[in-house]
This record gives sequence, C-alpha cells and structure tokens, in this order.
Amino acid sequence: MQIIKSTKELQSIRRGISTKIGFVPTMGALHEGHISLIKKAKKQNDIIFVSIFINPKQFSANEDFSSYPKKEESDIKICELCKVDYLFIPEISSIYSQNEVLIKAPNQSYILEGFSRPDHFNGVLQVVLKLFGLIQAHNSYFGKKDAQQLFLIQKMVNDFFINTQIIACETLRQNDGLAISSRNIYLSKEERKEASLISKSLYCALKIISKNEFDTSIIKNEMINILKDLNVEYIEFVNKDFKEIKKVQLKNTIILIVVKFKTIRLLDNIWV
Amino acid sequence: MQIIKSTKELQSIRRGISTKIGFVPTMGALHEGHISLIKKAKKQNDIIFVSIFINPKQFSANEDFSSYPKKEESDIKICELCKVDYLFIPEISSIYSQNEVLIKAPNQSYILEGFSRPDHFNGVLQVVLKLFGLIQAHNSYFGKKDAQQLFLIQKMVNDFFINTQIIACETLRQNDGLAISSRNIYLSKEERKEASLISKSLYCALKIISKNEFDTSIIKNEMINILKDLNVEYIEFVNKDFKEIKKVQLKNTIILIVVKFKTIRLLDNIWV
Repeated sequence: MQIIKSTKELQSIRRGISTKIGFVPTMGALHEGHISLIKKAKKQNDIIFVSIFINPKQFSANEDFSSYPKKEESDIKICELCKVDYLFIPEISSIYSQNEVLIKAPNQSYILEGFSRPDHFNGVLQVVLKLFGLIQAHNSYFGKKDAQQLFLIQKMVNDFFINTQIIACETLRQNDGLAISSRNIYLSKEERKEASLISKSLYCALKIISKNEFDTSIIKNEMINILKDLNVEYIEFVNKDFKEIKKVQLKNTIILIVVKFKTIRLLDNIWV
Repeated sequence: MQIIKSTKELQSIRRGISTKIGFVPTMGALHEGHISLIKKAKKQNDIIFVSIFINPKQFSANEDFSSYPKKEESDIKICELCKVDYLFIPEISSIYSQNEVLIKAPNQSYILEGFSRPDHFNGVLQVVLKLFGLIQAHNSYFGKKDAQQLFLIQKMVNDFFINTQIIACETLRQNDGLAISSRNIYLSKEERKEASLISKSLYCALKIISKNEFDTSIIKNEMINILKDLNVEYIEFVNKDFKEIKKVQLKNTIILIVVKFKTIRLLDNIWV
C-alpha cells in the first residue's frame, strides 16, 4: 500500500492508472462500516483508493473539529489489512485554497442534519467534489447510514455529470441491531443497551407498513412508544428526493431517526 | 461531423473515446474568434467537441436572453468546415434539473463584468462545470478576450482538481485592432470607426509601461485622452489573481476596458 500525502503526487499516480478504480472517502477512525465499504470496492474494482481527510469545512463553529477522533496509525493498519492500494491522507492546505469557488447545496440540505448547521452539507459537497476530481474513480462508495449526505452527493454527481458511479452500501449493525458508528464508543453501558431501541423502532415501523398502515404520524407514534424515555431529536419520513411525506410510498420512503445521549447524536435510518 | 442533442447520447459516445479530446464551449453565433479556438484545438488533439449552448443562467432578468443571436444553421456549417468531430447542441432541459446543486463564484466575480450582474459568473461556472463533466476533454479552449471568465474557470479547475487543461487563446482582431466580437455587427459605420480607439488605447498603455511608467492612474488618463468622447464604462488594472492594482507589475497585469456604444458593450483587454 502506498500512502499519498499531496494532491500533486496523487494526480501523477492517477495519470498512470488505466484500470478500474474504486474509491472510499472517509474521515478516518475506521470501523467495520468502512471496512465493509472497502471490501465491496475490492470486489468490484482493480485498484482501491481510500482517503482520510477530516474536512474542516463541514464542521460548524460550535462543533469541535479539533476533537474529532484521529486514529491515523490504526487506520493505516486497517487499510493495509484490507489490501487498499493507495491511501490518500492530504494536508488541509493542499485541499483548500484562498477565496475558493464554492458549492451551494440545494434545499434538501437545510433540513434534518443540515437544519442546525446550514453550512454542513456545503462543506461536505465541496470536499467530495474535490476528491472526485482528484481520484476520478469509476465507482465511489458511501454508506446508507448517512442517507441525506448520500442523496446530496448523488444529486451533485447527476447535476454536474460527474463520471463516477455512486455505490450505496448497507448500514452495518451490531448483533442487537445498533448501527455501527465511531460515536458508539462514547456511550455508557446503560446507554449502549438503550441504543438498541433505535433500530428496533425502525424495524417496528417496517412491520407496521407491511400491514398497509402508511400514515406517518401513526407509525411515528408507535416508534416513539418503543423509544420510551430516550431523547429523540427527530423521526422523519422523506421520499427519495428527500422531501418530507405524510404517507409512506413503498420503495420511495426513507425513515430517518436521530437519538441523543447527552451530546452524542446517534443516526439511523431504514429504506422502505 | 455528428450532432449530439442529448446528454445521454453524449455520455455514451464519450465512453467510446480513448484518444485526446479538445473541447471548445460556445454560445453559438460563431465568428473568426471561435474558429481560431477550434483550429488550435484541432492541432493539439485527436477528437474535437464543440458545444453550442446559450446558457440562460448567466443572463440577468434585465438582460435579453431570448434575443441573444441564434445562428444554428451557419454555426453547423462552420463546424463542418472546421472538421469538428462532435457538435453538442443540448436542450436546456437536458442540462438543468430542478433544485440544483449550485456553484458560487468567488469574490473576483462581483467586480467588473460581475458588478452589475451578480449572478452572471455563478451561471457561467455552473454550466462550464457541467460541460467539463460531460465532455471530459484533455484540453479546453477559452478566449483571453473574456479575461475575467477565463480567470474564474481556471480557478474552478484548480479548486476542484478538474482534469482538463485550460488553453487560453489570444484575442483575434480586425485590421484596425478592434477585438472580434459577435456584437461588432450592431455598430453603425461611425461607431465602428471609433471602436478602433479601444485597442489603440490599450497599445498606448503598453507603450507607456515600456517606458517604465507603472502608475495606473497616469496610464489610465492617457488612455482616456485617446478614447476622447467615447462612453468608457470602465478601465481597470488587475493582477493575475484579478485583484485591482495601483502599480503595474510586469507579467502580472491585465488592463481591462469596456466601452459602450448605446446599449452595446465592447470588451477588450491586454496582458502586460
């Protein structure tokens, strides 16, 4: 595995590759979820690029960019074990310039995960467009867990006719159903136990829908019953254009949930 | 020459090409300036794409998008004569979608040509990024006459690491020095004669600079003397980052001028 630190070096290596490239962009702190993306990429491509870049532009001023977990050493080991070909770990200064041309994400960016941090998805799209330009992968891998991000990246790829296939990968779960996330380690034992109710509420929603109950407020109430005393930040139903809906549409609905444990926000969702 | 009308068709054709591609994006109404770009592209590439797309997003509400000259038939003939391989003439609906991811041009977009039309360069960059995504050319050709546009496109290419080389092409001029433009035909005989003073004033500026006079206000005064009673909208001195400057820096200065004849704005510039 070759570690690449600069965009120039990356561009020069990229020019020499003519086989099929799979790309997995990450912010590091790699866990089983990322590994499943890399494994899928390995199966579908000849050469694998993984990037690790904690993108300052997607953090708000009140979010702690500087305390985001950094685990470079173990991340490198994981990538080696996964037989990644190129690991791209750029400096911030080689990614961003002064007075940049900016990406402005569309309406669907200012709800849900973008509601309280209006610049978050602008920052995500800004860096993802750069990475797409640099890597020029045939296939790029993103988790369904960040459903809104996935939607916006797919929209950007469509709008700008970017020549990469977005591969949406299933959320990986623990045995009790909890979606795997780097934030799970911050939970206390008690919280970790309660957190399994999140996916339980989503599966319950699926069950209700399978009985032809499509009214989202009824489904939401049942979910809240399961979640009991947990601090639910939101439960929302959107279609695949990320417009909020009142009636579930089969094959065109995502149920999104965020539950807070103290300051830790746990996201999950299910595609109906 | 093959005429392509849809983005899908273009993408399918593009997938089949593995040789060197040159791309000349235009808004049609092709003149000698465009032809010189196409000829340069022919020399440097194996396959030539020309696009004709009158981009509605770069016109302000008060500008007359609908009256922009359309000359599709003669444009097609010109491209055939120039041995263009693919002429891309897309419908607006195949280029733009609902609720798009947007490009926001940087500070240098809201001065000079962007001053009275703040969305102009946002619209230019929006469509150019789409065209770059579609054509994926090795080399893309732009005229130096639209210096600010050229600067912003190069900035976008740098910021997003877009894999195309921007080739800046010299402004083509009539015998008396007037920069060739599709707007020149709107001038009366008298105006056409006076219009030659524009380039004359730029050459005069060069001459003054060659005598080591670098003070832009002195140079500007001399230029205005030459331009006499013409309606000068602006004369500005910028460096290659498109920041306004007070002292000419050799090899790092562009002198930009706009002169109005009734509603017709004639642009010109010279690179010191």
